[in-house]
Amino acid sequence: MTDIGIVGLGRMGANIARRLLRAGQSCVVWDRDPAAIAPVVADGARGVDDLDGLVAALAPTRAVWVMLPHGDATEAAIRRLGELLSPGDIAIDGGNTHWKDDIRRAAELRAKGVHYLDIGTSGGVWGLERGYCLMIGGEAGPVARLAPIFAALAPGRGDIPETPRREGRARNVEEGWLHCGGHGAGHLVKMVHNGIEYGMMQALAEGLDLLRHADSPELPEEHRIEVDIADVAEVWRRGSVVTSWLLDLTAAALAEDPDLAKYSGRVGDSGEGRWTVQQAVETAVSAPVLTAALFSRFASRDEGHFAGKALSAMRHGFGGHLEPKKG
Amino acid sequence: MTDIGIVGLGRMGANIARRLLRAGQSCVVWDRDPAAIAPVVADGARGVDDLDGLVAALAPTRAVWVMLPHGDATEAAIRRLGELLSPGDIAIDGGNTHWKDDIRRAAELRAKGVHYLDIGTSGGVWGLERGYCLMIGGEAGPVARLAPIFAALAPGRGDIPETPRREGRARNVEEGWLHCGGHGAGHLVKMVHNGIEYGMMQALAEGLDLLRHADSPELPEEHRIEVDIADVAEVWRRGSVVTSWLLDLTAAALAEDPDLAKYSGRVGDSGEGRWTVQQAVETAVSAPVLTAALFSRFASRDEGHFAGKALSAMRHGFGGHLEPKKG
Amino acid sequence: MTDIGIVGLGRMGANIARRLLRAGQSCVVWDRDPAAIAPVVADGARGVDDLDGLVAALAPTRAVWVMLPHGDATEAAIRRLGELLSPGDIAIDGGNTHWKDDIRRAAELRAKGVHYLDIGTSGGVWGLERGYCLMIGGEAGPVARLAPIFAALAPGRGDIPETPRREGRARNVEEGWLHCGGHGAGHLVKMVHNGIEYGMMQALAEGLDLLRHADSPELPEEHRIEVDIADVAEVWRRGSVVTSWLLDLTAAALAEDPDLAKYSGRVGDSGEGRWTVQQAVETAVSAPVLTAALFSRFASRDEGHFAGKALSAMRHGFGGHLEPKKG
Amino acid sequence: MTDIGIVGLGRMGANIARRLLRAGQSCVVWDRDPAAIAPVVADGARGVDDLDGLVAALAPTRAVWVMLPHGDATEAAIRRLGELLSPGDIAIDGGNTHWKDDIRRAAELRAKGVHYLDIGTSGGVWGLERGYCLMIGGEAGPVARLAPIFAALAPGRGDIPETPRREGRARNVEEGWLHCGGHGAGHLVKMVHNGIEYGMMQALAEGLDLLRHADSPELPEEHRIEVDIADVAEVWRRGSVVTSWLLDLTAAALAEDPDLAKYSGRVGDSGEGRWTVQQAVETAVSAPVLTAALFSRFASRDEGHFAGKALSAMRHGFGGHLEPKKG
Repeated sequence: MTDIGIVGLGRMGANIARRLLRAGQSCVVWDRDPAAIAPVVADGARGVDDLDGLVAALAPTRAVWVMLPHGDATEAAIRRLGELLSPGDIAIDGGNTHWKDDIRRAAELRAKGVHYLDIGTSGGVWGLERGYCLMIGGEAGPVARLAPIFAALAPGRGDIPETPRREGRARNVEEGWLHCGGHGAGHLVKMVHNGIEYGMMQALAEGLDLLRHADSPELPEEHRIEVDIADVAEVWRRGSVVTSWLLDLTAAALAEDPDLAKYSGRVGDSGEGRWTVQQAVETAVSAPVLTAALFSRFASRDEGHFAGKALSAMRHGFGGHLEPKKG
Repeated sequence: MTDIGIVGLGRMGANIARRLLRAGQSCVVWDRDPAAIAPVVADGARGVDDLDGLVAALAPTRAVWVMLPHGDATEAAIRRLGELLSPGDIAIDGGNTHWKDDIRRAAELRAKGVHYLDIGTSGGVWGLERGYCLMIGGEAGPVARLAPIFAALAPGRGDIPETPRREGRARNVEEGWLHCGGHGAGHLVKMVHNGIEYGMMQALAEGLDLLRHADSPELPEEHRIEVDIADVAEVWRRGSVVTSWLLDLTAAALAEDPDLAKYSGRVGDSGEGRWTVQQAVETAVSAPVLTAALFSRFASRDEGHFAGKALSAMRHGFGGHLEPKKG
Repeated sequence: MTDIGIVGLGRMGANIARRLLRAGQSCVVWDRDPAAIAPVVADGARGVDDLDGLVAALAPTRAVWVMLPHGDATEAAIRRLGELLSPGDIAIDGGNTHWKDDIRRAAELRAKGVHYLDIGTSGGVWGLERGYCLMIGGEAGPVARLAPIFAALAPGRGDIPETPRREGRARNVEEGWLHCGGHGAGHLVKMVHNGIEYGMMQALAEGLDLLRHADSPELPEEHRIEVDIADVAEVWRRGSVVTSWLLDLTAAALAEDPDLAKYSGRVGDSGEGRWTVQQAVETAVSAPVLTAALFSRFASRDEGHFAGKALSAMRHGFGGHLEPKKG
Repeated sequence: MTDIGIVGLGRMGANIARRLLRAGQSCVVWDRDPAAIAPVVADGARGVDDLDGLVAALAPTRAVWVMLPHGDATEAAIRRLGELLSPGDIAIDGGNTHWKDDIRRAAELRAKGVHYLDIGTSGGVWGLERGYCLMIGGEAGPVARLAPIFAALAPGRGDIPETPRREGRARNVEEGWLHCGGHGAGHLVKMVHNGIEYGMMQALAEGLDLLRHADSPELPEEHRIEVDIADVAEVWRRGSVVTSWLLDLTAAALAEDPDLAKYSGRVGDSGEGRWTVQQAVETAVSAPVLTAALFSRFASRDEGHFAGKALSAMRHGFGGHLEPKKG
């Protein structure tokens, strides 16, 4: 396999390095926080002091996998790599960048003869053991060159049943990595993946919320039903239509605490959910579920409640309705 | 005009009586709270002590307008009227009853020769001055008999511009009262009216919320814009596409306090918004806006935030995401 | 095991009988269509000519599993069983009945000493091989008595990883069958399961639709990306956050034909999706994703497009906008 | 009043010129289509042959109102004006530009000493008679200078009832024009206005759709109700909570043809509805109604129905459901 450099040793980057090391792949690693480098070096990587050092430590032709928070950090690293790398080298953005930025960057790097791959990397904290689902955008040449790297990172076929009628299609897809198309295609597919993830999560959350309120005082007493949702989530894991990894995770959380009391109910969001909605708007595709999932998160963090206040003011205006007082 | 009885002297019932009295119509009124009767008697109505007394005080053929909170109170009053009234009399439910109940009740009363009208009455606290928009369901005979009552309660043509091409259509519609169809049609039309009201209110509330957040720290500093939404609501009242009574009320509330600080943000809902969504479900009509408006109110009162907690638990499960802590 | 009768030998009922027969359970079966009986008899069941014969053929105490289309057919069968069964016998509705009907029926049958179980049965055409996820409502006694039946029908633990911290909880849950609670609880949980199913399906469908339109002419040419969604669905099956049985089925359908040309785009719905939304409305729980999923199906079948016409009429009214002409 | 130039004599621009001319304001007008110039000249404007000529024909300090389709045409005109105008002159974009472009352009023009105003102009084909609601962004100086122009274009107070408690606030707001804030504020407010418009329209459309389907075969026969929606729309115009200009327009369209048969049901959208949703996404504001309104329009034009096909494929996969065939 080719020598590879990993930039950014957070939750994702460090484990990507480790999974490669376990597969016998040599890795040069760097993080701006020296404390993040040591543990990965302990697992067999070579550590360096800065990006220049990383590029210098790799034999051409090089591949450098940037795994940083999306935005300025990634942008700066890719820009600097454009200065440091040589023609034929490959710069990889494995983070969550908008695909439009990939298209722009690829053109910039191409001018210098440097290849660029955008890779959507799914797997989270489980990726080290479970493998990473890789969605790759860019030219065919560098993708082919890095095939062994992708194979080492991907989950492999595992015990997932084979899909019929895939004859004539690339086998690596069934191992969990896909060359999705040209520049941006990898991050586009990952963006939509995350959008779907938002929708599926919200579907599960609403369903559990309904069960949790099935004994609501809004219902006549004889219609109230109490349900143990930890058991419900568990039973759905086998033989039901909603079996899914998200359900597995939900069942585990509910087994620990059916009230999920340690969470506030305020839910964050990362860029991809928003970008997915913007994609829908820009391509005139109706995506009500993906959007409702995003908006539910926004609403969960809405401290000001201004829209609600405006509704109450109108109700008071026309009907003299008195809303529950502030307090 | 016919003698008319009014049962229920709350916000709506008392003003309906007053508007009729002002038009020279005699009214017999009753409320189970004697303190509610006196002020309407002071305005010229005859007060009675109970429903039996009300029916006795009216000369046949009678018309009794029940204006009570929907549900048990109205149901009991209509049932009792069925016992007290004589063939040819008219029982009216002017409240917010589900149209399916109207269909059932009309059949029950018909067996006794008593007519039944279901009347959706819009106008709220403004109806006394502005007039009530009346949506009437039932047989043509009793509707015709009560036309003068309806004309007195309705707003009249006012200075609203005439709609072209209404030649050949009933003139009373342009005065603000409509015989919508058979039993249930009045409350059906009122139910949908309220559903639309929910949707329009939510549209305005979301728009104002967007303007209120146009200087959000989520935006880069050079893109933040501060807007005085009280002035915005006012300027839209003339010449814009969103001119509406709801906007008028909103402008008035914002002129009083642009922060609407006296409201909590928790918004109540009455039956019709819910019934409208159920109607959509039962007739397989897609009604995403009317439903989103209802659900936004539900969410505004969701103290438990269980759906949000479930999302956070899943995020923690797959990505180690830490949500803002409870507190 | 107890002797069991199966009423209704459609897709679900026949395979339930077969799965029981394979487990060594004896079954008496009946369907009003004699042609449906023969194949199940060929697989080892005893066939009878009518419901009376089925009850007569079972040794007390009996259990009769009704697996009919929800609505009148099921209602009539349960009612007749109430007449035929003896105290201590168990009537089971394994179909998709509304949980409110279960509560009513259980009270009716209890008056005759007959037990009633409502069982949500998930598994579809795959249940024979994969096992059925069973969600059971009713009293503990009859549930305990039929535990071997449920164990035979359920999928069993399989190779699904164990959920941590379930110590002290019923083991059968991990085998795929759950006593969810009192009467109605089984169908309630199944109803919500189907609601979630609608939401997850729509999330996947919207995501694929977005990818399919990622080369939309609405985008500037340099931003258009072509993606092979059959490969995308396949790659997500391993290591991604959206791995799920619904994704497996989608990948299989897309492998057969990425254009899904044999489908019209019009999507049907069965009762549970609607009931789930009604449950949300009745318990004041915001469920925007489950509802958007249902409404998308309604909209897909909307031949009249009246709402769209109304929008066009308004646009024409205020702006002179000319919409694409009918044709 | 100041001399003013109008660039673009489409539906909006020509009528803006006419309304100014009627108010005694002199106007120099230009359109790249000479045929568009003649009629406005006939109404009293001075016509010119090109943008250079227009600037030359105006006495400093000049104001030039650009009223062109948003996008390239407007951008080019503003850029050219930047070259032609002198310090102290005012360039106005009265069209539907994104507020972010306004902020950029204002900075570009400021470098040349040219003022820039972004004006959201509502009123459509009715503006000539009804007046235009003007939402203005930019510096206070040029706004004050053009106050007479704005007063001539705005509707004036009319017979709209005064909003109480507006003491101390600018009177011109009640005449229908508002200096909303700095650069971009005018188009921001107009953008949100249009977003609200989408939501209100959709609320009305869904309500009418529900009434239209109130006799749906999905309902039991005794629950089907037929309603004349042309009369319903009319009756709501007086005294109801949903009185609005959009309702007036709807009532007029339905009076002409209750079936709205000349419309296809496919509904277009212009930029502001999309931008409003993007604003919601960028500022993390939940706007489910405004978004559902936009998506309903997208869905109305979805010829491919791919999301629906994907749902059908999944249904077929797990349940053997057969959807209505293509045809």
